[in-house]
Amino acid sequence: MSATRSLLIDGIGELVTADAEGTVHYDAAMVVEDGRIAWIGHRLNRPAADDRLDLGDRAVVPGFVDSHAHLVFAGDRAGEFDARMSGEPYDGGGIRTTVEATRRAADERLRENCARLTAEMLRQGTTTVEIKSGYGLTVEDEARSLRIAREFTAETTYLGAHTVPAGADPDAYTALAAGPMLDACAPHARWADVFCERGAFDADQARTVLTAAAKAGLGLRVHANQLTAGPGARLAVELGAASADHCTHLTDADVDALANSSTVATLLPGAEFSTRSPYPDARRLIDAGATVALATDCNPGSSYTSSMAFCIALAVREMRMTPYEALEAATAGGADALRRTDIGRLVVGARADLAVLDAPSFVHLAYRPGTPLIATVIRGGGVVHQRAEN
Amino acid sequence: MSATRSLLIDGIGELVTADAEGTVHYDAAMVVEDGRIAWIGHRLNRPAADDRLDLGDRAVVPGFVDSHAHLVFAGDRAGEFDARMSGEPYDGGGIRTTVEATRRAADERLRENCARLTAEMLRQGTTTVEIKSGYGLTVEDEARSLRIAREFTAETTYLGAHTVPAGADPDAYTALAAGPMLDACAPHARWADVFCERGAFDADQARTVLTAAAKAGLGLRVHANQLTAGPGARLAVELGAASADHCTHLTDADVDALANSSTVATLLPGAEFSTRSPYPDARRLIDAGATVALATDCNPGSSYTSSMAFCIALAVREMRMTPYEALEAATAGGADALRRTDIGRLVVGARADLAVLDAPSFVHLAYRPGTPLIATVIRGGGVVHQRAEN
Ligand SMILES: [Zn+2]
Ligand SMILES: [Zn+2]
Repeated sequence: MSATRSLLIDGIGELVTADAEGTVHYDAAMVVEDGRIAWIGHRLNRPAADDRLDLGDRAVVPGFVDSHAHLVFAGDRAGEFDARMSGEPYDGGGIRTTVEATRRAADERLRENCARLTAEMLRQGTTTVEIKSGYGLTVEDEARSLRIAREFTAETTYLGAHTVPAGADPDAYTALAAGPMLDACAPHARWADVFCERGAFDADQARTVLTAAAKAGLGLRVHANQLTAGPGARLAVELGAASADHCTHLTDADVDALANSSTVATLLPGAEFSTRSPYPDARRLIDAGATVALATDCNPGSSYTSSMAFCIALAVREMRMTPYEALEAATAGGADALRRTDIGRLVVGARADLAVLDAPSFVHLAYRPGTPLIATVIRGGGVVHQRAEN
Repeated sequence: MSATRSLLIDGIGELVTADAEGTVHYDAAMVVEDGRIAWIGHRLNRPAADDRLDLGDRAVVPGFVDSHAHLVFAGDRAGEFDARMSGEPYDGGGIRTTVEATRRAADERLRENCARLTAEMLRQGTTTVEIKSGYGLTVEDEARSLRIAREFTAETTYLGAHTVPAGADPDAYTALAAGPMLDACAPHARWADVFCERGAFDADQARTVLTAAAKAGLGLRVHANQLTAGPGARLAVELGAASADHCTHLTDADVDALANSSTVATLLPGAEFSTRSPYPDARRLIDAGATVALATDCNPGSSYTSSMAFCIALAVREMRMTPYEALEAATAGGADALRRTDIGRLVVGARADLAVLDAPSFVHLAYRPGTPLIATVIRGGGVVHQRAEN
């Protein structure tokens, strides 16, 4: 006898598994036991279960895996955005504004911000989110950022090397980030990340931090090639990082390196949308054989969206991904970028994390851009969001 | 004594009126009586009222006025969209598919589609929507489309001249649209519209339909200059139409004509998003002095979004509108395009139609693209939508 009640999810019009074969089931049903998928098949063959949920022929997709988000911060930068988009000069301080506000904020304030944004994400179908530090930039503020992030997700990322704080010496700060700051943060993080870019950390500095982090037992990720065709993507591959994120400016050698590695190219089109920048070329990466993930980059400076569906629509419109490729990148791709096999795909044995669309097909995520289509969200087999009927 | 209870809406952090002066109130309150705004001011000066709603410092904007939507149809064209965005050939029939499905559909099916989409719009802050016919293309199917549309809005538009139906002679169909079809439709419509474009109706044909419609007492609108710099925009101005819609390809003479008229240039960036087409140049129109509106063009072929917030974000990203200009175009601009003075602006005497944002400022509508920010929707002074708390 099972300790928990089994759930039959019936009336699934279209079930996108995002498995390796790209299997899509129609007129399907699913049985969930102990938070995992126990059975998937045609609804005519459905087994008995303790409880039953009928989806009325709606489409079901894996819960989105948002593998890149910066949620531990205080304040916003709407004024900076308004000025940038209005073509007006603005010296608001950029990321330093957020660092100052974050340092000043009480723990409870940072916790509320994470709670607000993760709830917003959940309503939009995101059942797993990675959360980075990176607005503390002191040993204490980075560590508390990660302690707070850990309350919301297992996928926490130490990003002490986000930017060199005002007044600091770059090499001295690099040594801090690779030393005492890392020591204080590693217990609260699964991953380490570095913003490897002109004006932030160069290849040597990034390698110093990432190598130390790997020794401390953290997995690696890199903010790579966002603004220039710099060394980030190849460094990510060299160090066996799980993900090279942004990948907006890539040389042929970068594309080759990514395609011949297990490093996922994580594309963040929300950042290009909100900064009026050229988009990364997803088609080129996919055609070369690289694994592509989509994520929001949710942050108050350059990409304050929390919507994976919006990223899917942008990927199709702007990055020449097909609707299916974009859906896969937002689910299975995100799981790959987090080296997770229990999420991102709806297969027997996986966690029952899924989003029910108020639509007959996943294609509507791109076909109906900007329109909230998430009717119901199920995580670990339990309904965690149900849309209001006006 | 008032027949209905008065309502104090308190705790408005930012109140965007969209009035002629661009007034924005901070720390504001509003009193609603009989569905109209009776008072607006600083919360310290708020008068007494029967009931009170506290918005917790959220931003309030006028309910969106979506002045261009095609909601009376059956079926969808997700397959066509998928093929187009995947670069695959597809001969699904385009608009003819929708015409056939609409003709075949029972009234109840068309009514359900309108109900679903208008409910979706309401949840996204749209408190007024214009609905066009145009997928019937027979006397009977156009008239029933408008009868059904009228159940959902006062802003119904006769668009018999949407496309020449399969097998019909263009001039004969024009005569039908300007004659018996118009006669059957006029009682159910406030407006008439023509798709004036190469491959649809030329200037003479459009003038024939629009002139007849004006004689029948309908206001005029024109689908103009979407695909080519054709005669539509200038025809709209010549005939005193309330709105020229799309305006993607304009000559300098078109811009001048619009700027020196009361014809609103209604921009529909959702169509350019979903067809990978170049966007209209809103900046040029605004700088020339034209009045600009934003609308969704919600339809199953070229723009199946129902989100005015998405259109605002696109207008800012792609059309060089400032966040404020985009908000104004989506509210007051839409009202101007419908020649309405009772909606689209939050001023004393206007209808109490408003959207409460889960954000401190209207700027977030563009700053947080794709993210559903509508917390509460009030129409005619009554709460008609309240977001689910997961
Ligand atoms: Zn980032
Ligand atoms: Zn249209």
